[in-house]
Amino acid sequence: MSEKIGILAIGHGSRLPYNNQVVTEIANMISDNHPEYIVKAGFMENSEPTVEEALMSFEGTGVTKVAAVPVFLASGIHITKDIPAILKLDPETNEGEVQLNGKNVKIVYGKPLGSDKLIAELIFKRAQEVI
Amino acid sequence: MSEKIGILAIGHGSRLPYNNQVVTEIANMISDNHPEYIVKAGFMENSEPTVEEALMSFEGTGVTKVAAVPVFLASGIHITKDIPAILKLDPETNEGEVQLNGKNVKIVYGKPLGSDKLIAELIFKRAQEVI
Repeated sequence: MSEKIGILAIGHGSRLPYNNQVVTEIANMISDNHPEYIVKAGFMENSEPTVEEALMSFEGTGVTKVAAVPVFLASGIHITKDIPAILKLDPETNEGEVQLNGKNVKIVYGKPLGSDKLIAELIFKRAQEVI
Repeated sequence: MSEKIGILAIGHGSRLPYNNQVVTEIANMISDNHPEYIVKAGFMENSEPTVEEALMSFEGTGVTKVAAVPVFLASGIHITKDIPAILKLDPETNEGEVQLNGKNVKIVYGKPLGSDKLIAELIFKRAQEVI
């Protein structure tokens, strides 16, 4: 059986619209650039869809594995505790399962952005814009 | 007088070391790639140096303007309220001043990362790493 991969882009969420907009736009960019993947966005708090709702929205897409990736700059409590708790990941393996269309689908958990030269250049560009 | 620009990379801060590490590494990358700029990192909460300490550390560097840029993914309350309050920015102009070596040095305020195709590709890479 060939794998069909879902990517769940997880945002922090916010009462303001910005986080939701940015994470949704990033999910759409991934989907546009990689149409062979099913990409969804979900939010930890204060925004919708929730992580659980986004996870369940893979129903009917035929995904055989879901990569949940936090759209966060750096690790922290949300990454190490809160999101794994929502996804019910095994603390040993950082993996979990979700039932979609009556089948168990594996969830794997990616790292946040981290330090990367692309981000350094984007911050430099943001400085240039206001100097 | 020619301008000498300081870049203040502002991180959220965290009780865990990750945010501090990522923001400091990003500041170092900007400094390495653009040695004509003076780059400092400072943190809104829970990490040191604080934003105020980082701002004062431009003393003696000869900077004539400081671009304060939040190393945050998206806007939100921290970006629109908390950091401007720490930097004492004028709410009308989003600009401020700091006294360094007895001179008033202008502070300008950059946007956070936002949605960008580079970030979309980095999130996709993070998914690929765990699939």
